Amino acid sequence: MAVAFLGERGSFSELAAIEHFGPGLRTIPLPDFSDVFACVSARKASHGIVPIENSLAGSIHQNYDLLMEHSLSIVGEITLRISLCLVANPGVSKKSIRQIFSHPQPFAQCKQYLKQYKKVDLIAQSSTAGAVKHIKENNLRDAAAIASMQAAIDNGMHILDRNIEDHDNNMTRFIILSHKPRVPGTLEKNMKTSVVFSTKNNPGALFRCLAVFALRDIDLYKIESRPMHGKGFNYLFYLDFKGSVCDKETKNALMHLEELTTSCRTLGSYPIGKIVEPKYKKKVK
Amino acid sequence: MAVAFLGERGSFSELAAIEHFGPGLRTIPLPDFSDVFACVSARKASHGIVPIENSLAGSIHQNYDLLMEHSLSIVGEITLRISLCLVANPGVSKKSIRQIFSHPQPFAQCKQYLKQYKKVDLIAQSSTAGAVKHIKENNLRDAAAIASMQAAIDNGMHILDRNIEDHDNNMTRFIILSHKPRVPGTLEKNMKTSVVFSTKNNPGALFRCLAVFALRDIDLYKIESRPMHGKGFNYLFYLDFKGSVCDKETKNALMHLEELTTSCRTLGSYPIGKIVEPKYKKKVK
Repeated sequence: MAVAFLGERGSFSELAAIEHFGPGLRTIPLPDFSDVFACVSARKASHGIVPIENSLAGSIHQNYDLLMEHSLSIVGEITLRISLCLVANPGVSKKSIRQIFSHPQPFAQCKQYLKQYKKVDLIAQSSTAGAVKHIKENNLRDAAAIASMQAAIDNGMHILDRNIEDHDNNMTRFIILSHKPRVPGTLEKNMKTSVVFSTKNNPGALFRCLAVFALRDIDLYKIESRPMHGKGFNYLFYLDFKGSVCDKETKNALMHLEELTTSCRTLGSYPIGKIVEPKYKKKVK
Repeated sequence: MAVAFLGERGSFSELAAIEHFGPGLRTIPLPDFSDVFACVSARKASHGIVPIENSLAGSIHQNYDLLMEHSLSIVGEITLRISLCLVANPGVSKKSIRQIFSHPQPFAQCKQYLKQYKKVDLIAQSSTAGAVKHIKENNLRDAAAIASMQAAIDNGMHILDRNIEDHDNNMTRFIILSHKPRVPGTLEKNMKTSVVFSTKNNPGALFRCLAVFALRDIDLYKIESRPMHGKGFNYLFYLDFKGSVCDKETKNALMHLEELTTSCRTLGSYPIGKIVEPKYKKKVK
């Protein structure tokens, strides 16, 4: 078993993978979300892990789009509490910072904190841990990175400020991808199913689709409308609801949904994930 | 009348403002979306204009959040076809580019094109026109910017590539803000109303809210769920639907919606906006 993820060692995706699968896991760091999907599709990794939603910055749309481009299944989820640090090379002071490196998501999560750095360039990197590695390898004396405490510890970097995110309640939900769907046991409880569908642009079209669930008292967790690429403002809907494709009720609901939609795909059924606090560990040399 | 917008002269927001209000308009360039909202709230501008949704990159969540933080009304909308250019100082070749400046949205809209620039730093600026101004004023010879053709023309810059966005159908919808709601005439047709609401986390809660519209054959244009800041994965819903608050039917629907929601606010009724191709004009010195 091997799990593909975005970034360098110590990134939030790797922390989430270790929390989900347990320690001793083989992980494959990759430079881009599209590489994670491609790696799993090509069966070079048994699983992939990608963030799908942050409680402050919203959905990670790129990964919703990649779900459409690939025919992978969602087989699990885990939610990580995210705490961000401002990290620099030892001896670098806050006053000397002229550029800050990070992934665009942490920039969005630290907007209040970053107001004090108005004259500083915010430079997008493909991952938070990659940002730390970049300022370390180039020994940048006028730069900092926004990353996890783990990335700072792993690289022997100095933490200038911690918990710099705008809200305490900063959580990211990750989904686990596989090239084959998870087959849930019929007795498994606390399952969630994700579907994506499109409807004709009629009054009441979405209402009728949601009736499929409401008439069966099925709880919805999330609805997301996405403009369809290259089709102007036509929408796809992503929906997460309670239950698994092995429940008779869910099967009926999905058959009913197919009747009412122009396209409909089940992305997977999987156990509802835990919310975890990542465990930081000192680097063992 | 004065319209606050994000960025420098020649930004897409200013182009949209001129298309909406007509030429000869007084515009107020500001460095951040939050400044646009604050400027209109403080009545230093009669109107503000901000992008709310792009057909490729999705919603601009920051502006949804700012709608919640301020008590401004939406009084209009306009959709602009967005065509992006790679812009550099005259004499700079593509080979010498080591950094590209732009707003994060154009980076998201040009992902395919940017794959050839993997080793190049993508540096986030607060606006596309600001990015052009930055490379011009510092006469950067190893940098380019992604911006509108207008920004290139206005600054006498060289266009290295045009139409670099991933899809032809790249459109951005802008909303017009004011500190007082627009009062629609009772005979006005083709109106749209925007509301934001939250529900209890019950099965069927969203379904019942959409029933309000479906039972009255009211057409929905858009639904967006947003996690509520600092409350974990609880959701607010943003909904755009056909009709104006002066229609009896819409009034009834909104009263009915208030019964079913834990909070509900009407953001405004306004004429459905046109889709326009911006007119580029040579700079007159």
